[in-house]
Amino acid sequence: MTEYSPGLEGVVAAQTAISEVDGANGRLIYRGGYLIEDLAPAVSFEETAYLLWNGELPNKSQLDALRQEMAAARKLKDSTRSVITSLEYDTDPMDVLRTAVSAQGAAKALQKPTVVEAISLTAVVPTNLLWMMDGQEPARERVHWLDQYLVLLADHGLNASTFTARVVASTGSDLASCVVGAIAALKGPAHGGATYAARTMLDSIGSVENVDKWLADAHAKHARFPGFGHRVYRTYDPRAKILREMAETADPRLHQLAAHTEEVALKILHDAHPERPNATNVDFWASVVLTGAGIPKELFTCVFAMARIAGWTAHVLESLADLRIIRPASQWVGPEPGKKPIPVEKR
Amino acid sequence: MTEYSPGLEGVVAAQTAISEVDGANGRLIYRGGYLIEDLAPAVSFEETAYLLWNGELPNKSQLDALRQEMAAARKLKDSTRSVITSLEYDTDPMDVLRTAVSAQGAAKALQKPTVVEAISLTAVVPTNLLWMMDGQEPARERVHWLDQYLVLLADHGLNASTFTARVVASTGSDLASCVVGAIAALKGPAHGGATYAARTMLDSIGSVENVDKWLADAHAKHARFPGFGHRVYRTYDPRAKILREMAETADPRLHQLAAHTEEVALKILHDAHPERPNATNVDFWASVVLTGAGIPKELFTCVFAMARIAGWTAHVLESLADLRIIRPASQWVGPEPGKKPIPVEKR
Repeated sequence: MTEYSPGLEGVVAAQTAISEVDGANGRLIYRGGYLIEDLAPAVSFEETAYLLWNGELPNKSQLDALRQEMAAARKLKDSTRSVITSLEYDTDPMDVLRTAVSAQGAAKALQKPTVVEAISLTAVVPTNLLWMMDGQEPARERVHWLDQYLVLLADHGLNASTFTARVVASTGSDLASCVVGAIAALKGPAHGGATYAARTMLDSIGSVENVDKWLADAHAKHARFPGFGHRVYRTYDPRAKILREMAETADPRLHQLAAHTEEVALKILHDAHPERPNATNVDFWASVVLTGAGIPKELFTCVFAMARIAGWTAHVLESLADLRIIRPASQWVGPEPGKKPIPVEKR
Repeated sequence: MTEYSPGLEGVVAAQTAISEVDGANGRLIYRGGYLIEDLAPAVSFEETAYLLWNGELPNKSQLDALRQEMAAARKLKDSTRSVITSLEYDTDPMDVLRTAVSAQGAAKALQKPTVVEAISLTAVVPTNLLWMMDGQEPARERVHWLDQYLVLLADHGLNASTFTARVVASTGSDLASCVVGAIAALKGPAHGGATYAARTMLDSIGSVENVDKWLADAHAKHARFPGFGHRVYRTYDPRAKILREMAETADPRLHQLAAHTEEVALKILHDAHPERPNATNVDFWASVVLTGAGIPKELFTCVFAMARIAGWTAHVLESLADLRIIRPASQWVGPEPGKKPIPVEKR
């Protein structure tokens, strides 16, 4: 029995070759050993998903085949369409996504997770979001920014949603169940919801001249600054660095506000806790890039799910090779067992 | 960084006063310190749920109030009804449950989990199952057997589905998301699906005279016997003991077959692995009691969810007091980072 480590910090819960977060050196490594800063400029999201699922980047014919499979799988089942339209129109988009993926993955009998199903589920969480939102072909740059975001966010070690997917998989459950569980976890503001929170903070600050006062006031009220700090990184998140650069072109006005906010926030956090590594995380700069790509902030967490589903499914497939139920221990902090009598009237 | 422990065996992932599985001594302790064998004969499922949520057994007026709240909450939203009827009629009942709870819990905005919502979600996973199945008032004994099953299965430490609920909760997500994730995990045959598998094995054996040959053949093919063995118990599961006794009245014919199957299975398992504690687990005898209560085996895992939702929600509510994202570490087993070149055609 090991000591209790809140949040399982530092507890090794899996051996994996899907991705590695080297927090001490600020490196993110994807399957095959690629550093994110080498890989991202060279590949599309489909190529990244293929890499995470199969261990190798696809050649041209493999990529063409994958694109065809994904296009074919993009159609929702009639039952799923009907489920989506059953929900009230003002439902939280993440609740719609959770319910829709659950419906799309519903089946007659339990199936073991497969790459084919991973492709289907990844395709069906719409990759043609910009088309749907605009009803017309989106500008090439916007497609590029969104695609780069998807590449950068496709996997990230044993984050809470990926870990959820692996726990669900460990019981022998199906792939849709793993993804639904992961969506449920991603929804939380301490996880996928943080990009929305970062953008909401920037909206609330409003303009460069408000930055100092707004942050000082928030800090005085012990508010946390969304988009800063991370469990694993001890230095600047490499994804945040890439997104920060993209943000300069994607939304120059918001970039300016965000850059000043970042500078002041880091100073406040450092002054308050010089011992803590309070670097900017991916959510902060992702909120600017997604804004530039034309995504309404209410859909930020859904777009995060679009990216991370590649990682979730890759982790589940990897875990099948040595499936063992994830069933940790707990430490009893209740009263001494067997001492309290059952009330007389219940005996 | 701790050593890798597959399945997180022996890793303490939470401090809890909801329940404790004392595997070494074959004891299950519920909130307040009650031993399951003292509590079960004295209480109903509603009283058990109240205990897990509030820390005390209800008095008469508290119980009446709870029953009224649950009755009022039993109605499905129109959107949930419509979601259920959208799914194909032959969908796996656990997939229907996962999708229906996701729809029922869908909301406009993120809510912090509350006891009121725990009551609603517990009520809505139908507690009037026997009524629905039969269309008439069920026999009093059948209600009693089902109710005792629900009491016994209401919580069980950090099992995989409860742990899933706690991981989802740790991100700040809503209660319905926690429950949906837990249902996704419970579905697996290594977890909630095991009761169905135990009953299927008994069906396949068919009669007492087939037991020896059937089990010997299965063992020769390295098949696992569902309903035997447990991660935590090192001796007879106290719930299995209570259910075994109830099974004698609930379904005498199936009890006879099961008792002989148990005897032979334990002997085979002991001979093969004398070092392992191969005691009968709760799923084995639950499959006989649920059969006696008139539940079709296709619904066994859903009935398990009806019970465990009390524990899932109690654990989530407990975890709110000290919320910290559950984000374990992983061990990289891929190639050395940064060595493999990006293929030329992608640069």
